Amino acid sequence: MHYFAYKRNYLCCEEVPVREIIKKFGTPLYIYSAKTILAHFYKIQRAFSSIHPLICYSVKANSNLSLLKLLVKKGAGLDIVSGGELYRAKKVKCPSKRVVYASVGKTVSEIKDALSYGILMFNTESPEELRRINEIARSTKRDVRCALRVNPDIEVHTHSYITTGTRETKFGMDIDTARDILLHRKRYPYLKIVGIHLHIGSQITKASPYLKAIKKVRTLIKEVATRGISLEYLNIGGGLGIVYDKEKPQTARDFSLKILPLLKEINLKVILEPGRFIVGNAGILVTKVLYIKKSYRKQFIIVDAAMNDLMRPALYGAYHKIVPLQKGASHARKMPLIRGVDIVGPICETGDFLGKARTISTREGEHLAILGTGAYGFSMSSNYNSRPRPAEVLVKKNKIYLIRAREIYKELVRKEIIV
Amino acid sequence: MHYFAYKRNYLCCEEVPVREIIKKFGTPLYIYSAKTILAHFYKIQRAFSSIHPLICYSVKANSNLSLLKLLVKKGAGLDIVSGGELYRAKKVKCPSKRVVYASVGKTVSEIKDALSYGILMFNTESPEELRRINEIARSTKRDVRCALRVNPDIEVHTHSYITTGTRETKFGMDIDTARDILLHRKRYPYLKIVGIHLHIGSQITKASPYLKAIKKVRTLIKEVATRGISLEYLNIGGGLGIVYDKEKPQTARDFSLKILPLLKEINLKVILEPGRFIVGNAGILVTKVLYIKKSYRKQFIIVDAAMNDLMRPALYGAYHKIVPLQKGASHARKMPLIRGVDIVGPICETGDFLGKARTISTREGEHLAILGTGAYGFSMSSNYNSRPRPAEVLVKKNKIYLIRAREIYKELVRKEIIV
Repeated sequence: MHYFAYKRNYLCCEEVPVREIIKKFGTPLYIYSAKTILAHFYKIQRAFSSIHPLICYSVKANSNLSLLKLLVKKGAGLDIVSGGELYRAKKVKCPSKRVVYASVGKTVSEIKDALSYGILMFNTESPEELRRINEIARSTKRDVRCALRVNPDIEVHTHSYITTGTRETKFGMDIDTARDILLHRKRYPYLKIVGIHLHIGSQITKASPYLKAIKKVRTLIKEVATRGISLEYLNIGGGLGIVYDKEKPQTARDFSLKILPLLKEINLKVILEPGRFIVGNAGILVTKVLYIKKSYRKQFIIVDAAMNDLMRPALYGAYHKIVPLQKGASHARKMPLIRGVDIVGPICETGDFLGKARTISTREGEHLAILGTGAYGFSMSSNYNSRPRPAEVLVKKNKIYLIRAREIYKELVRKEIIV
Repeated sequence: MHYFAYKRNYLCCEEVPVREIIKKFGTPLYIYSAKTILAHFYKIQRAFSSIHPLICYSVKANSNLSLLKLLVKKGAGLDIVSGGELYRAKKVKCPSKRVVYASVGKTVSEIKDALSYGILMFNTESPEELRRINEIARSTKRDVRCALRVNPDIEVHTHSYITTGTRETKFGMDIDTARDILLHRKRYPYLKIVGIHLHIGSQITKASPYLKAIKKVRTLIKEVATRGISLEYLNIGGGLGIVYDKEKPQTARDFSLKILPLLKEINLKVILEPGRFIVGNAGILVTKVLYIKKSYRKQFIIVDAAMNDLMRPALYGAYHKIVPLQKGASHARKMPLIRGVDIVGPICETGDFLGKARTISTREGEHLAILGTGAYGFSMSSNYNSRPRPAEVLVKKNKIYLIRAREIYKELVRKEIIV
């Protein structure tokens, strides 16, 4: 579900034809729909309304300040993973008690920054990290809330790079370690261990792995409760899948129906950390067709966006729908239908492709929209091949806002010193 | 071959202990050895000295201005692939007649910029591109030199993402198309088609695929010569492999011995485009050990460098040696030897690893050097997880030069506009 649709044969973002936006800002260009972002936020909010969870948007999916502000204004918290994301949370004035901080590699200065902002809690990933936070807390004389990120060792069927809850991954701690920490929490006198955190992976389309993981920690929560240790929060992470191609992901409602009984039984305050679910389908990357070439009978559409702008196809073999900005009979008469064509960028690397074996009507000088690129699009972009990064635009109904200016050549070398 | 070595048990870059450099500039930090860069440049120069080739360093491998200047001062030309790299070539005042420009997706403004700089030639990749350059040349009233990039359809045994000379890839044109263009070069009256360009891939450790490719174009060159079409240049590209692990790549000398007879027979001016060969082993990425953790009996060393700093392990499954900054018996007594450990960054993604199943002596607070990261290291770096990009340092004998300052949080959001 999203608010990119053809109106009178022209692809629009909400009420604005995409071609008008690119006329103003050029290509490659990321365009986001505010209404789509909020619709997904509200979907989760409604689905879980009976338990009033704290919904912390996962900043790493798309960290543009304007998107963060949009969500924070509507009551979202932020799930951060670095000092840089904390900096962003402060920039948009996210109330500190709506910020949770997970990362296997928090540095001393990152921990201090988060402490002085007074975040709701750290999602801690190892006893070593708890020791470090405890030491820092001692010197700053603050009580610090922590949740224990438990690695439930649950298989999910997604790309191996975004599976995070199996024993082979670096994330969290095994349940035995978590139990030991809870039973000996006096070892960390400056910490309040207030909850359990789970995050099993990304782009998960079914409820069953969540159910399995939550059941595993339910056992732990009950067990320590009998020893007088009561917790306050259960953070079930993010990872809700979206439609890129032919996936049939569960809706937020399906998901909540399946897991609410379990959450109600456990009866702790619930935190959710959706990222891709909120912004994934709320963004497109618009690109111009530079050349259509044929070599050894194979055809290529060469566009002005590349793997530096959108890393997902190269890195994960990810599929994104690619569509023209115009459709309909009169358009089709002018445009050749090209079958089995690879859509590729200008970067000097075979990994630089955006789509393979597609069939599409287009020609040189026309534009294409790469759909579902709101999450892990701009946030993973680089300057590879000395390519300035694209601009980002936010659309609200009939209004267009530039939310990140296009980089220029001068900025590529701004930090460099010629010796 | 490189000038990173242990001296009195401390890892040094040329004459400077690495620990002194990181004391000054922190981690993660890229450190380059000027002597190593130049040694590799001279190796190629010497190996091919009998034919005086133009050696155009491939900017995309590492585009830092100070490295470009170092090479340009010694007579190197530059192989560029974008307007941004042209901007860099101008910044270091590379003589325009030592610049060659390849890319499947040159835009009109990039072509115009290159024309007005007066580059030696475009390596053109399709008839469509030739048509476009011809049109632009007409309006600017300049004669424009072009080489035809031929895709020889040669298999090389390297990662599929960096194979560029098979019929499945987007690069260059098939030989029939190149022949047709040469025979009908009058179609492009503003272009001088002066040469043939080949680039079959990257990290190639043997001469045989080069020999095969050059033989294919030799046939073409002879054939068109009988029709009165004489060419001036043969550009054989780059792609020379280096040692990352146990590779036994040919030396520049081996390579030249094998291909010089063929090049002399063809008797055109030769252009070479080495990138990785020159800078690959001339750089290291130094990182600090943040945590050593164990979960489900598996150990992880968590360091402060991550996939945003060095993409190669995640993107290509690339292997890089990882070594401590200190060795020797007294060091070993203090440091536990950790076996079968994954060395990973703080990024919230399982793809964020730098080395797997390594055995290394280290502990929290110590530093590690990731070797062979001079090429496609910083140039592919991003701000993923809102991580500022690392600093870059160049060492010349006993002197340390900061050649790119570390990014700070403020710069992450500099181009963003809160609406």
